[in-house]
Amino acid sequence: MKSNNPRVRILIGAATALGPGKVDLLLAIDRHRSISGAAREMGMSYRRAWLLVDSMNRSFTSDLVVTSTGGKGGGGAEVSALGHDVVRRYQEMEDKAAQSVALEASEFAKLLKDPSGDA
Amino acid sequence: MKSNNPRVRILIGAATALGPGKVDLLLAIDRHRSISGAAREMGMSYRRAWLLVDSMNRSFTSDLVVTSTGGKGGGGAEVSALGHDVVRRYQEMEDKAAQSVALEASEFAKLLKDPSGDA
Repeated sequence: MKSNNPRVRILIGAATALGPGKVDLLLAIDRHRSISGAAREMGMSYRRAWLLVDSMNRSFTSDLVVTSTGGKGGGGAEVSALGHDVVRRYQEMEDKAAQSVALEASEFAKLLKDPSGDA
Repeated sequence: MKSNNPRVRILIGAATALGPGKVDLLLAIDRHRSISGAAREMGMSYRRAWLLVDSMNRSFTSDLVVTSTGGKGGGGAEVSALGHDVVRRYQEMEDKAAQSVALEASEFAKLLKDPSGDA
Protein backbone atom coordinates (compact mmCIF):
# COMPACT_ATOMS: atom_id res chain seq x y z
CA MET A 1 0.00 0.00 0.00
CA LYS A 2 1.48 3.36 -0.98
CA SER A 3 2.48 5.48 1.96
CA ASN A 4 0.05 8.22 0.98
CA ASN A 5 -2.78 5.73 1.19
CA PRO A 6 -4.44 5.21 4.53
CA ARG A 7 -3.41 2.59 6.97
CA VAL A 8 -6.64 1.56 8.55
CA ARG A 9 -6.10 0.31 12.04
CA ILE A 10 -8.78 -1.44 13.98
CA LEU A 11 -8.99 -1.45 17.74
CA ILE A 12 -11.30 -4.10 19.12
CA GLY A 13 -12.88 -3.58 22.49
CA ALA A 14 -12.93 -0.75 24.95
CA ALA A 15 -9.57 -1.87 26.30
CA THR A 16 -8.29 -2.34 22.75
CA ALA A 17 -7.94 -6.07 23.20
CA LEU A 18 -6.30 -6.15 19.80
CA GLY A 19 -4.63 -3.57 17.62
CA PRO A 20 -1.99 -3.43 14.91
CA GLY A 21 0.93 -3.59 17.32
CA LYS A 22 -0.38 -6.73 18.97
CA VAL A 23 -1.09 -8.32 15.61
CA ASP A 24 2.47 -7.54 14.49
CA LEU A 25 3.71 -9.13 17.71
CA LEU A 26 1.64 -12.27 17.08
CA LEU A 27 3.12 -12.52 13.58
CA ALA A 28 6.65 -12.10 14.94
CA ILE A 29 6.06 -14.72 17.64
CA ASP A 30 4.79 -17.07 14.94
CA ARG A 31 7.99 -16.49 12.95
CA HIS A 32 10.36 -16.86 15.89
CA ARG A 33 8.42 -19.39 17.98
CA SER A 34 9.67 -17.24 20.83
CA ILE A 35 8.48 -14.13 22.65
CA SER A 36 12.04 -12.94 23.24
CA GLY A 37 12.95 -13.44 19.59
CA ALA A 38 9.83 -11.53 18.53
CA ALA A 39 10.62 -8.75 21.01
CA ARG A 40 14.16 -8.46 19.63
CA GLU A 41 12.88 -8.26 16.06
CA MET A 42 10.39 -5.57 17.05
CA GLY A 43 12.89 -3.63 19.13
CA MET A 44 10.85 -3.88 22.31
CA SER A 45 11.82 -5.23 25.69
CA TYR A 46 10.98 -8.82 26.53
CA ARG A 47 8.94 -7.48 29.43
CA ARG A 48 6.83 -5.29 27.16
CA ALA A 49 6.26 -8.14 24.70
CA TRP A 50 5.31 -10.46 27.54
CA LEU A 51 2.86 -7.92 28.97
CA LEU A 52 1.23 -7.49 25.55
CA VAL A 53 0.91 -11.26 25.17
CA ASP A 54 -0.52 -11.55 28.67
CA SER A 55 -3.06 -8.83 27.96
CA MET A 56 -4.12 -10.56 24.72
CA ASN A 57 -4.40 -13.92 26.41
CA ARG A 58 -6.58 -12.38 29.11
CA SER A 59 -8.78 -10.61 26.58
CA PHE A 60 -9.83 -13.59 24.49
CA THR A 61 -11.83 -16.69 25.30
CA SER A 62 -8.60 -18.72 25.17
CA ASP A 63 -4.91 -17.98 24.84
CA LEU A 64 -3.61 -16.55 21.56
CA VAL A 65 -0.04 -17.43 22.52
CA VAL A 66 0.93 -20.60 24.36
CA THR A 67 4.37 -20.62 25.98
CA SER A 68 6.23 -23.81 26.74
CA THR A 69 7.92 -22.44 29.84
CA GLY A 70 6.71 -18.89 30.44
CA GLY A 71 9.92 -18.42 32.42
CA LYS A 72 11.52 -15.01 32.51
CA GLY A 73 13.93 -16.16 29.82
CA GLY A 74 11.02 -16.51 27.45
CA GLY A 75 11.39 -20.05 26.26
CA GLY A 76 9.33 -21.37 23.37
CA ALA A 77 6.06 -19.77 22.34
CA GLU A 78 3.44 -20.77 19.78
CA VAL A 79 0.58 -18.83 18.32
CA SER A 80 -2.52 -20.94 19.07
CA ALA A 81 -5.20 -21.91 16.55
CA LEU A 82 -7.35 -19.10 17.97
CA GLY A 83 -4.38 -16.77 17.62
CA HIS A 84 -4.04 -17.60 13.94
CA ASP A 85 -7.78 -17.17 13.46
CA VAL A 86 -7.69 -13.81 15.22
CA VAL A 87 -4.81 -12.61 13.02
CA ARG A 88 -6.56 -13.75 9.85
CA ARG A 89 -9.87 -12.07 10.81
CA TYR A 90 -8.05 -8.90 11.84
CA GLN A 91 -6.16 -8.65 8.56
CA GLU A 92 -9.32 -9.30 6.56
CA MET A 93 -11.11 -6.52 8.44
CA GLU A 94 -8.16 -4.18 7.98
CA ASP A 95 -8.01 -4.84 4.23
CA LYS A 96 -11.77 -4.51 3.76
CA ALA A 97 -11.92 -1.29 5.76
CA ALA A 98 -8.95 0.18 3.87
CA GLN A 99 -10.48 -0.70 0.51
CA SER A 100 -13.77 0.87 1.56
CA VAL A 101 -12.13 4.29 1.87
CA ALA A 102 -9.36 3.98 -0.72
CA LEU A 103 -10.88 6.65 -2.97
CA GLU A 104 -11.55 9.13 -0.17
CA ALA A 105 -8.04 8.54 1.13
CA SER A 106 -6.31 9.28 -2.16
CA GLU A 107 -8.34 12.50 -2.36
CA PHE A 108 -7.39 13.28 1.23
CA ALA A 109 -3.74 12.66 0.48
CA LYS A 110 -3.82 15.62 -1.93
CA LEU A 111 -4.14 17.87 1.13
CA LEU A 112 -0.76 16.67 2.35
CA LYS A 113 2.27 18.83 1.64
CA ASP A 114 4.40 15.82 0.82
CA PRO A 115 2.45 13.20 -1.18
CA SER A 116 4.49 10.55 0.61
CA GLY A 117 3.07 11.83 3.86
CA ASP A 118 6.56 12.17 5.28
CA ALA A 119 6.14 15.88 5.89
CA MET B 1 -20.66 2.71 18.91
CA LYS B 2 -20.77 -0.16 21.42
CA SER B 3 -17.43 -0.86 22.99
CA ASN B 4 -17.32 -4.38 21.59
CA ASN B 5 -17.59 -2.97 18.11
CA PRO B 6 -14.40 -1.98 16.36
CA ARG B 7 -12.96 1.47 16.48
CA VAL B 8 -11.48 1.91 13.06
CA ARG B 9 -8.59 4.29 13.15
CA ILE B 10 -7.02 5.66 10.05
CA LEU B 11 -3.44 6.78 9.79
CA ILE B 12 -2.74 8.94 6.78
CA GLY B 13 0.77 9.09 5.43
CA ALA B 14 4.00 7.33 6.23
CA ALA B 15 4.62 9.74 9.07
CA THR B 16 0.98 9.42 10.17
CA ALA B 17 0.28 13.04 9.35
CA LEU B 18 -3.13 12.50 10.90
CA GLY B 19 -4.56 9.98 13.30
CA PRO B 20 -7.34 9.78 15.86
CA GLY B 21 -5.35 11.53 18.58
CA LYS B 22 -4.61 14.51 16.37
CA VAL B 23 -8.23 14.68 15.22
CA ASP B 24 -9.37 14.67 18.86
CA LEU B 25 -6.91 17.47 19.53
CA LEU B 26 -8.27 19.51 16.61
CA LEU B 27 -11.80 19.07 17.96
CA ALA B 28 -10.71 20.13 21.44
CA ILE B 29 -8.89 23.18 20.06
CA ASP B 30 -12.04 24.09 18.16
CA ARG B 31 -14.05 23.87 21.40
CA HIS B 32 -11.59 25.84 23.52
CA ARG B 33 -10.19 28.19 20.88
CA SER B 34 -6.96 27.52 22.71
CA ILE B 35 -4.17 24.94 22.52
CA SER B 36 -3.57 25.08 26.26
CA GLY B 37 -7.28 24.65 27.01
CA ALA B 38 -7.42 21.69 24.63
CA ALA B 39 -4.29 20.19 26.21
CA ARG B 40 -5.84 20.53 29.67
CA GLU B 41 -9.05 18.84 28.56
CA MET B 42 -7.08 15.99 26.99
CA GLY B 43 -4.73 15.63 29.95
CA MET B 44 -1.61 16.27 27.91
CA SER B 45 1.10 18.85 28.41
CA TYR B 46 0.89 22.11 26.51
CA ARG B 47 4.24 21.20 24.96
CA ARG B 48 2.94 17.91 23.62
CA ALA B 49 -0.20 19.53 22.22
CA TRP B 50 1.88 22.25 20.59
CA LEU B 51 4.23 19.69 19.03
CA LEU B 52 1.25 17.74 17.63
CA VAL B 53 -0.21 20.93 16.17
CA ASP B 54 3.16 21.89 14.71
CA SER B 55 3.53 18.47 13.12
CA MET B 56 0.03 18.69 11.61
CA ASN B 57 0.64 22.19 10.30
CA ARG B 58 3.87 21.01 8.67
CA SER B 59 2.20 17.96 7.14
CA PHE B 60 -0.60 19.68 5.24
CA THR B 61 -0.58 22.14 2.38
CA SER B 62 -1.61 24.86 4.82
CA ASP B 63 -2.02 25.19 8.58
CA LEU B 64 -4.83 23.26 10.27
CA VAL B 65 -4.51 25.40 13.39
CA VAL B 66 -3.81 29.13 13.36
CA THR B 67 -2.57 30.66 16.60
CA SER B 68 -2.98 34.31 17.40
CA THR B 69 0.18 34.55 19.46
CA GLY B 70 1.96 31.21 19.43
CA GLY B 71 3.64 32.37 22.62
CA LYS B 72 4.61 29.79 25.19
CA GLY B 73 1.46 30.64 27.14
CA GLY B 74 -0.57 29.30 24.24
CA GLY B 75 -2.81 32.27 23.48
CA GLY B 76 -5.74 31.94 21.13
CA ALA B 77 -5.95 29.23 18.51
CA GLU B 78 -8.44 28.56 15.73
CA VAL B 79 -8.98 25.52 13.57
CA SER B 80 -8.63 26.74 9.99
CA ALA B 81 -11.07 26.03 7.15
CA LEU B 82 -8.67 23.33 5.95
CA GLY B 83 -8.57 21.99 9.51
CA HIS B 84 -12.35 21.67 9.59
CA ASP B 85 -12.34 20.03 6.16
CA VAL B 86 -9.66 17.58 7.26
CA VAL B 87 -11.64 16.63 10.39
CA ARG B 88 -14.84 16.15 8.37
CA ARG B 89 -13.12 13.98 5.76
CA TYR B 90 -11.35 11.97 8.45
CA GLN B 91 -14.57 11.28 10.35
CA GLU B 92 -16.37 10.30 7.15
CA MET B 93 -13.59 7.84 6.28
CA GLU B 94 -13.59 6.47 9.81
CA ASP B 95 -17.37 5.94 9.78
CA LYS B 96 -17.36 4.38 6.31
CA ALA B 97 -14.48 2.06 7.16
CA ALA B 98 -16.12 1.03 10.44
CA GLN B 99 -19.43 0.32 8.74
CA SER B 100 -17.67 -1.76 6.08
CA VAL B 101 -16.50 -4.25 8.71
CA ALA B 102 -19.32 -3.94 11.26
CA LEU B 103 -20.54 -7.51 10.66
CA GLU B 104 -17.07 -9.06 10.81
CA ALA B 105 -16.34 -7.07 13.94
CA SER B 106 -19.40 -8.25 15.83
CA GLU B 107 -18.46 -11.82 14.92
CA PHE B 108 -14.90 -11.11 16.06
CA ALA B 109 -16.13 -9.71 19.33
CA LYS B 110 -17.55 -13.14 20.21
CA LEU B 111 -13.93 -14.32 20.58
CA LEU B 112 -13.44 -11.84 23.41
CA LYS B 113 -13.76 -13.08 26.97
CA ASP B 114 -15.64 -9.99 28.03
CA PRO B 115 -18.14 -8.85 25.37
CA SER B 116 -17.43 -5.28 26.44
CA GLY B 117 -13.85 -5.85 25.46
CA ASP B 118 -12.74 -4.63 28.85
CA ALA B 119 -10.95 -7.85 29.67
